[in-house]
Amino acid sequence: MKTISNRTYDEISIGDRCERTHTVSGQDLLLFAAVSGDMNPVHLDADYAATTRFKGQIAHGMFTGALISAALAMELPGPGTVYLGQNIAFRRPVKIGDTLTVILTVSAKHDSKSIVTIACDVKNQHGKTVADGEATVMAPDSKMTVEVPDLPEVTVNH
Amino acid sequence: MKTISNRTYDEISIGDRCERTHTVSGQDLLLFAAVSGDMNPVHLDADYAATTRFKGQIAHGMFTGALISAALAMELPGPGTVYLGQNIAFRRPVKIGDTLTVILTVSAKHDSKSIVTIACDVKNQHGKTVADGEATVMAPDSKMTVEVPDLPEVTVNH
Repeated sequence: MKTISNRTYDEISIGDRCERTHTVSGQDLLLFAAVSGDMNPVHLDADYAATTRFKGQIAHGMFTGALISAALAMELPGPGTVYLGQNIAFRRPVKIGDTLTVILTVSAKHDSKSIVTIACDVKNQHGKTVADGEATVMAPDSKMTVEVPDLPEVTVNH
Repeated sequence: MKTISNRTYDEISIGDRCERTHTVSGQDLLLFAAVSGDMNPVHLDADYAATTRFKGQIAHGMFTGALISAALAMELPGPGTVYLGQNIAFRRPVKIGDTLTVILTVSAKHDSKSIVTIACDVKNQHGKTVADGEATVMAPDSKMTVEVPDLPEVTVNH
């Protein structure tokens, strides 16, 4: 079974960074529609989406937010992190097939409550920022390594 | 087929409001883990989660963000909305079985670019705020009614 380890508040330095990459699929949009309840046809219906200002299906903005939250929870700081808040600006549309890189960079530490602020930048395969913002988390106090549960298989029945 | 209609910038008044309710299931957490890549055991493994400060499985914070984004996209302003940004503070844990109510209230209009700011409050079944913040959207200029695509069935194979 795969495990993940965290970085404690004391181990984190300003400027620490992580990157995670994900290529957006049509299935991502279907699953995000199912889990969020946002079934707007601009995300799901290729023919309709072609008639919009975006000229094709676009990912839900908050799907990019979900990728940021996963980077915080899985890597920096990782397990034991308490997510306190997020500011996010959606700057460019994301399309199926785009490869997104989430870049997290620690921007400040606040010793009193182990609070860390982390700059978030999400770039597409052309190096253009599609979303950016800032996360506020309470970093873990103790070192831990946890097992990543095997996810049950999720199937989309077309 | 179900349809949804939007509210155009001109139709929107400060104080306009909508509410959407959702009861959180274990399947929501599995799907959100699958689509985001956040497979932290605090969301997925009941035995592990019982040992944490939360004393049980909690929903991903950004799952609540996804519910907010769906309310913006499906109802206020609805189809044709361009999501520009979101600030969100996660104030209380959300557990399986909690019934969340997303409450959107238009707080400001900025005529130059049809920009609307919307206060977002998400309460649980006890009336406690689990997350709040503010959304910034470009409201649609033209009235539209769109068909909501039938989602293919999503199954989780345990």
